[in-house]
Amino acid sequence: MLVSDVGEFGLIERIRKGTITSSAVLLGIGDDAAVLKLREGMLLVATTDLLVEGVHFLRDFTTPYALGRKAMAANLSDIAAMGGIPRYTLIALALPKGASLEFVEELYRGLREEAATFGVEIVGGDTSSSPAGVVLAISVSGEVEREGSISRTGAKAGEGIWVTGHLGASAAGLAALKAGFRVKELQGVEEEIGGPGVERLSREEQEAIRLAILAHLFPRARIPEGRAIGGKKLASAMIDISDGLASDLRQICRESRVTARVSQGRLPLHPSAALVGRLLGQDPLVYALEGGEDYELLFTSAWSPHDVEEALGGLATATWIGEVVEGEGEPLLLQPDGSSRPLGGGYNHFKR
Amino acid sequence: MLVSDVGEFGLIERIRKGTITSSAVLLGIGDDAAVLKLREGMLLVATTDLLVEGVHFLRDFTTPYALGRKAMAANLSDIAAMGGIPRYTLIALALPKGASLEFVEELYRGLREEAATFGVEIVGGDTSSSPAGVVLAISVSGEVEREGSISRTGAKAGEGIWVTGHLGASAAGLAALKAGFRVKELQGVEEEIGGPGVERLSREEQEAIRLAILAHLFPRARIPEGRAIGGKKLASAMIDISDGLASDLRQICRESRVTARVSQGRLPLHPSAALVGRLLGQDPLVYALEGGEDYELLFTSAWSPHDVEEALGGLATATWIGEVVEGEGEPLLLQPDGSSRPLGGGYNHFKR
Repeated sequence: MLVSDVGEFGLIERIRKGTITSSAVLLGIGDDAAVLKLREGMLLVATTDLLVEGVHFLRDFTTPYALGRKAMAANLSDIAAMGGIPRYTLIALALPKGASLEFVEELYRGLREEAATFGVEIVGGDTSSSPAGVVLAISVSGEVEREGSISRTGAKAGEGIWVTGHLGASAAGLAALKAGFRVKELQGVEEEIGGPGVERLSREEQEAIRLAILAHLFPRARIPEGRAIGGKKLASAMIDISDGLASDLRQICRESRVTARVSQGRLPLHPSAALVGRLLGQDPLVYALEGGEDYELLFTSAWSPHDVEEALGGLATATWIGEVVEGEGEPLLLQPDGSSRPLGGGYNHFKR
Repeated sequence: MLVSDVGEFGLIERIRKGTITSSAVLLGIGDDAAVLKLREGMLLVATTDLLVEGVHFLRDFTTPYALGRKAMAANLSDIAAMGGIPRYTLIALALPKGASLEFVEELYRGLREEAATFGVEIVGGDTSSSPAGVVLAISVSGEVEREGSISRTGAKAGEGIWVTGHLGASAAGLAALKAGFRVKELQGVEEEIGGPGVERLSREEQEAIRLAILAHLFPRARIPEGRAIGGKKLASAMIDISDGLASDLRQICRESRVTARVSQGRLPLHPSAALVGRLLGQDPLVYALEGGEDYELLFTSAWSPHDVEEALGGLATATWIGEVVEGEGEPLLLQPDGSSRPLGGGYNHFKR
């Protein structure tokens, strides 16, 4: 069935029916604006992202459900990077002519499930037509304690640089998708993965491809980690890794008026990134530095490694990868042979 | 100069430099998310709109500055319709390759000026590339008293239906633009207006075209009126007229499980709509009922006409246009000859 068969109001009605909201939502989907409660004494934290078909996603590489999951995760990740609690989300969607109702329902299922992981409620939005591809704009509101938020501006020379989890799996997954690999869960291939020459790959290699693709399609915002880091005042500056370690660390440095040295040997490369890189003849270090979309937290801290690890006990691992240094300019990567080079480029939306 | 000459970060830097924020903005443009203060005891009110080139606007009919003004006004209007105070806005923008820096700066000048009219601050957003036209997603957050917000669901049989200001000027302006008319302020025509056969028009007709085009391009959200209506608990239901009186009244009726009768002779048709309609051989009643984008407030009230007018003293005029009646189905228009007909259609984004 097509969206045009049910019309704009029929579509909103279907979206509303699938959405259950709590008593903190005084007015939700279907009115001019949502009316919402924040807890007393908390500050409002707010972020928005715009996803455009052909730029931020390709329908060949994903499914509507996975697109919804990832789009929501990317937004929640911005709240995680502030040390905040996400609470509410507004979703604006523009659909090309001939869009199917199933596409929208699957997209919303993904959005809703990922939001529900952290108790976030869909409270409104906007629907319209689009002359070209799908456009999705998500905004998330949440709350943070008066002294709890973490900007990008507080990094000081001498502090350690830390990253949660592992890097490079998302970019490795994208590379695998571009090389023609697909996973059973999503794209209905017969075996766990399908793709060029997959029958000649070892079980371990197949599993690495599968994990990388799933990491690319289903990232998870580091909300509990962000809360722990913010609540314990562990970090002087924090950002989530959306554009790639090199680009995101450069932003912390620029905003904090410092620079950085990162030890290549300390980078927590995801095991599947290393394997996929070898298979595809690509450098997994580039996945980690330039790939982006890992949605791990990158932060600076004056705390000792022991104290940082203890503060995050039970949550994601955090790895010391380098240190903040005085000065300006591009952060450096210290290579195993003792030499150093600029950390990298990163994704620029307007690069020619 | 092109956006690609300064890159994504150069662009954000330029946007940030033009934006001054108050002490209520603890973190604004340039971080992962904005951190903001609401007044104690207030509820959060939040809305979003997505504008896509070719659907919501045509660059031939507007300028980047006017587009910014109108896009912001449309969002603020949703807050007005809740009886809320708009405070903060996030702006997400996707630009086609080859977009000029001047386009973005003019767009932001318009967004910023319209926001500043009501003390609203730009606190963040997102910038990216677009494979086709310009995409603009705006979200506005604000605050409203615990008992002050007005939904679409409270209309009761026997209540009066009211509308602020006048109707139809925006649609008349769009019709004039489609007919080839342009105004001096925006599109650099030599006289006050330019267009086909303009030299044969009277001063009065030229002025009507000019006012209609300006009404279409520069609507103003009815924030003070919304505050007065909310603060005095004047309205049982309220909506802003974005899709057209017929469509927006139908929404109040559907949400409130009632229907309505509107008196054609009571409709506060904008004088320029009548004149433009006559000139173009179109029915100005269609502008008022179906045109939309007047951004007037439509509300239902149990108050007497005298009391409604007194409560809004000093603000926009409000006109009694009909009454809420029991039942379901399409609201009716009572015509001057005593007969009635369904009120209308309204704009459906997914109509085939």
